[in-house]
Amino acid sequence: MILSALATSVGLNLTFTVLLAAAYTLLRRRPAYVEVYAPRRPYAPLEPWLPAAWRRSEEDIHAAAGLDGVVFVRIFVFSIRVFAAAAVLGVGVLLPVNFLGDQLQEIDFSDLPNKSIDHFSVSNVQDGSNMLWLHFSAVYIITGITCYLLYHEYKYISCKRLEYFMTSKPLPQHFTVLVRAIPLSDGASVGDAVDKFFREYHPSTYLSHTVVHQTGKLRRLLNDAENICAKLTNLKYVQRSSGDTPRKFLGLFGRKDLLGKYQKRLEDVEENVRLEQSDATRRQEIPAAFVSFRSRYGAANAIYIRQSDNPTEWQTEHAPDPDDVYWPFFSTSFMERWIAKFVVFVASLLLILVFLLVVAFVQGLTYLEQVEQWLPFLRNILEIAVVSQLVTGYLPSVILHFLSSYVPPIMKLFSTMQGFISVSGIERSACNKMLRFTIWTVFFANVLTGSALSQWKIFLDPKEIPSKLAVVVPAQASFFIAYVVTSWTSITSELTQTAALFFHLWGKCCKRDDSKAPSMPYHSEIPRILLFGLIGVTYFIVAPLILPFVLVYFCLGYFIFRNQLFNVYAPKYDTGGKFWPVVHNTTIFSLLVMHLISIGVFGIKKLPLASSLLLPLPVLTLLFNGFCWNRFLPIFEAYSTESLIKKDREEQSKPDMPEFFSNLVTAYHDPALKPMQRASNSDERTAPLLGSV
Amino acid sequence: MILSALATSVGLNLTFTVLLAAAYTLLRRRPAYVEVYAPRRPYAPLEPWLPAAWRRSEEDIHAAAGLDGVVFVRIFVFSIRVFAAAAVLGVGVLLPVNFLGDQLQEIDFSDLPNKSIDHFSVSNVQDGSNMLWLHFSAVYIITGITCYLLYHEYKYISCKRLEYFMTSKPLPQHFTVLVRAIPLSDGASVGDAVDKFFREYHPSTYLSHTVVHQTGKLRRLLNDAENICAKLTNLKYVQRSSGDTPRKFLGLFGRKDLLGKYQKRLEDVEENVRLEQSDATRRQEIPAAFVSFRSRYGAANAIYIRQSDNPTEWQTEHAPDPDDVYWPFFSTSFMERWIAKFVVFVASLLLILVFLLVVAFVQGLTYLEQVEQWLPFLRNILEIAVVSQLVTGYLPSVILHFLSSYVPPIMKLFSTMQGFISVSGIERSACNKMLRFTIWTVFFANVLTGSALSQWKIFLDPKEIPSKLAVVVPAQASFFIAYVVTSWTSITSELTQTAALFFHLWGKCCKRDDSKAPSMPYHSEIPRILLFGLIGVTYFIVAPLILPFVLVYFCLGYFIFRNQLFNVYAPKYDTGGKFWPVVHNTTIFSLLVMHLISIGVFGIKKLPLASSLLLPLPVLTLLFNGFCWNRFLPIFEAYSTESLIKKDREEQSKPDMPEFFSNLVTAYHDPALKPMQRASNSDERTAPLLGSV
Repeated sequence: MILSALATSVGLNLTFTVLLAAAYTLLRRRPAYVEVYAPRRPYAPLEPWLPAAWRRSEEDIHAAAGLDGVVFVRIFVFSIRVFAAAAVLGVGVLLPVNFLGDQLQEIDFSDLPNKSIDHFSVSNVQDGSNMLWLHFSAVYIITGITCYLLYHEYKYISCKRLEYFMTSKPLPQHFTVLVRAIPLSDGASVGDAVDKFFREYHPSTYLSHTVVHQTGKLRRLLNDAENICAKLTNLKYVQRSSGDTPRKFLGLFGRKDLLGKYQKRLEDVEENVRLEQSDATRRQEIPAAFVSFRSRYGAANAIYIRQSDNPTEWQTEHAPDPDDVYWPFFSTSFMERWIAKFVVFVASLLLILVFLLVVAFVQGLTYLEQVEQWLPFLRNILEIAVVSQLVTGYLPSVILHFLSSYVPPIMKLFSTMQGFISVSGIERSACNKMLRFTIWTVFFANVLTGSALSQWKIFLDPKEIPSKLAVVVPAQASFFIAYVVTSWTSITSELTQTAALFFHLWGKCCKRDDSKAPSMPYHSEIPRILLFGLIGVTYFIVAPLILPFVLVYFCLGYFIFRNQLFNVYAPKYDTGGKFWPVVHNTTIFSLLVMHLISIGVFGIKKLPLASSLLLPLPVLTLLFNGFCWNRFLPIFEAYSTESLIKKDREEQSKPDMPEFFSNLVTAYHDPALKPMQRASNSDERTAPLLGSV
Repeated sequence: MILSALATSVGLNLTFTVLLAAAYTLLRRRPAYVEVYAPRRPYAPLEPWLPAAWRRSEEDIHAAAGLDGVVFVRIFVFSIRVFAAAAVLGVGVLLPVNFLGDQLQEIDFSDLPNKSIDHFSVSNVQDGSNMLWLHFSAVYIITGITCYLLYHEYKYISCKRLEYFMTSKPLPQHFTVLVRAIPLSDGASVGDAVDKFFREYHPSTYLSHTVVHQTGKLRRLLNDAENICAKLTNLKYVQRSSGDTPRKFLGLFGRKDLLGKYQKRLEDVEENVRLEQSDATRRQEIPAAFVSFRSRYGAANAIYIRQSDNPTEWQTEHAPDPDDVYWPFFSTSFMERWIAKFVVFVASLLLILVFLLVVAFVQGLTYLEQVEQWLPFLRNILEIAVVSQLVTGYLPSVILHFLSSYVPPIMKLFSTMQGFISVSGIERSACNKMLRFTIWTVFFANVLTGSALSQWKIFLDPKEIPSKLAVVVPAQASFFIAYVVTSWTSITSELTQTAALFFHLWGKCCKRDDSKAPSMPYHSEIPRILLFGLIGVTYFIVAPLILPFVLVYFCLGYFIFRNQLFNVYAPKYDTGGKFWPVVHNTTIFSLLVMHLISIGVFGIKKLPLASSLLLPLPVLTLLFNGFCWNRFLPIFEAYSTESLIKKDREEQSKPDMPEFFSNLVTAYHDPALKPMQRASNSDERTAPLLGSV
């Protein structure tokens, strides 16, 4: 890519970014779009969004989006700090050094726009030049800064997590344990078995239990009822908007018929639901139960000490928030979950492979000659300068962004199949899957297929990895710079909520239940953000030109998401910051890849001493990671005796505890078994409609 | 190797085996050797050892050698079962099929002794022959049998372990927790901090604590005292054996002088020890303590639930048996242990590398031409038939056996450096290190260097591993058959205790403290035995000729160790069968290597369908292993709430518990701080000597 192509791309994306932001600024104040742009508030906010996003304190974010929201914003804060330092080093020191090198070609300032951006990369530095020691120092400095910031953030967020626990009001999930694989002696019910076991081994702390039931059929019926309700509401809405006067006789007649038909079906389904709910003998018990304890420490005892002599029986784990429980998958047994895990593993691999083929094709677009070879009829069009710049600089990134957006739902489905018991568990697992997927299909696939598919072999020859990476990574610098620049548009389109806007407009004729604010899709957003961190860190030494663009991306993200977490997304669960370790590990991984590439670059640049002197750096980084692993990770996995007992004692004498405990007994009742609220509600909603006909 | 060379080797080793066994049978009844052959009994046993070893029940072994002894014998029982089945299949079905194949050469029964043993290997079967389906079925059958037996053994041993726990008398280690990294606020002592913390968070179960002290100097002094005592005793012994009459004036004078000198030094040292022991202010406290609880469940609570908000403080772990504590290494901090681990890891790698070079040389010996090339002056000697057979069939194995015997102490030293707190922990870690070492340097190194060093590359090309292994593994069949046959001698030499015998005889003039029975060196014996399992399983399909030899090895081992565990080795600790998971995992590993080789063999033998149909087998084996991992491994890591509470309740009302608890308070006092028993004892021992002078 030449400099003018880059400028075109930057210009285009800046325009899009500004246009999108402007559209948002205009649309958000119109009450018609409140449901899209401020579903969390019942009114259109009047203050300008950018200053408001800037002024908001972390306490505000905590209150609005939970600790997960805070962690999400901290990812941006951390990245901005890292890339501010990196940009100062990279643009201030490395870039001039690279540009003034003469490895590639004589400098000719007059023809700057037609210069390849390779002139700004390390490739342009003379082999064996002493200037490379600046690059060497930069690697050590940036690793040091990043590790220091990582430590600081990890410490900060673990403190927040502890604070969050100590100041939380009593929560059912802290007192409750999910017990699975309950063994049954003949004739005994699951409830009796649970009662007997916990009265025997936890006599002083055991409070109550709720056996889980097979409610698949009931859930299907409720789902049917909900669908019919939605259709009824929709029909009513359409009738109203077309006016009460019967303009089209045939249409109204058809609609009246339809209304009656749906009403009849709704009544049938509701009758079935009531029948199913009232008849306990119809429901099959699942050998799983939520067991509640009188204290948090009592629950911790049941979780961390194995209960039964047979480790596959009486398996205990943390209960999720009652609202966070994912009920449909309770029916899976230990064995089924195990097989599902295996199947999902294979399916994820296949998905990555399929996607790689797509990427290989898309990457071909950056090489115009290949495109012309594949699609000869396009040759004339491709020879126009703007088109060729668009195709090489913009199209591949757009296609990739577009295709990538289809993957998170698939990954979430995979995680669902694995039998997690909570929505948060599913999303955390999907987040990890997405991360692996993104790193492999977007980063490595583009790095490796860019040159040739045969490059895949480098992973089979460990000793050659650094020098091979040092060749193929710089070769893809243009693509990734373009990718980062394109991402400005994609992150700003988060503001305009294009999909939600579309659904909202379409909803005029096909009413959907959009009264609820959506939840933040952490599982797709976090991997995407981390990918840009990976790209930025790995290209730090190779092509420092990318750093300002990455920094702009993170700054945009910082403002945009601080706004969105306030206005759009309502937290569906709170993991208490459990997403942070993922961010930490990915950053360490990025640093290691950067070290590998640097070792290779100095080798190729005929400065073997620098390569050797870099070898301790990955080892030190891993040791640092090991230290963080021991120092902070346990805090994200479990609360300590110290915290648990302090918190228990603090609340012992509080007057509202008896009420909490009496609520706790019923907290984990399957919502499918609760009296039909939604259906009767919509019954009322549809009543006037029926009356009006 | 030709058949006659194999016969020579078998003949030689059989002779040695019988000779060694005969020597043992003769020597063991002589009272002079009781200290070598029956140190656990004060008398020379009269009954014949072989029938006695046969008749002994498992209860006897449990009583004599603990659960670890039982597990050790079960390794032989399990291996005998597997290899009996394998030998029936291999020798009964595969061997005739291989021999009647005609891939290598026409069969010529007249020249049988000069036939290469390759004629008994799978290489001799015609490419693409349908007979290979027999081999295919054999792989499935032996995997099935092995997995069934593995499951059976794992279940049996976990039951034994639970039984052992439920029937054990109260043991201090079940009630005690080792706490490390105790944080100190200014001025407070470790003892106060521990007391405060556990009274706060474990008020109902906390019993007492013992702070660990820096006793390095004291230990050195005690060691000095012991050494001087030994020298004194030795001088006395020599004096007695040379008669009380002063034959040599000068010698006696010198000795008397020496006696006085040692006596003086002993008194000095003992004075220092007393001073050091009495003055508590001289000893530095270590921020570690043994904390005892009133119940086993109370101790489990402190171990499995993290104590402090900061995970690097108040770290708890199982306390070892008081006699099993390895006191010298208490001084290491969390950071020091961490660095030591890293250093040891690097050192182990280096050791393996050094050893590999040695193996490469030794392996060269199996190729006579190479030896002649290296050492041309030996050519004449090497041309003698017996010598050449000795050199190719016997010498390499002997050298390997000899060198390998030096590695276990080094590995134990490495494990010691890692900062384990118990002797059993050190030996279990050394066992794992030895296992990795053995598998790499003995198995893979011999397989790969036998042909050419360039074969190492196969691990860098995963897809090629099966076919490469299928080439190089059969090529080393001769070596490994010879190796197994040589091992008969080495395992029988366990009976004669050559080293101990030598020391005993030498001890006539250099008295050593051999009154105590030695402990079983599990860390060196278990990896050695598992190696033969690995060799047998991997060569099952390739060279079934090896199977009877392996079977003989395990039968010999079964009888010999049942005898030795009774007469020679006294258990120094009891891990409760924690060595079994190592055996299980290694067997699974062996099966997987066998599957890989088989897949490669069928590929090379032009039966690709069989290769493909074998692919599910390693997956199934891994799934089986995963199941065992979930089902049994937790039992070896911790006892369950069920067991702990049952056991606690059972003993609550027993009359001897108050006494146990009062002993528990002092159970973990550093033996270096106890009044000098040994020194004063030997004082008495040396007293008559001094009197006689």
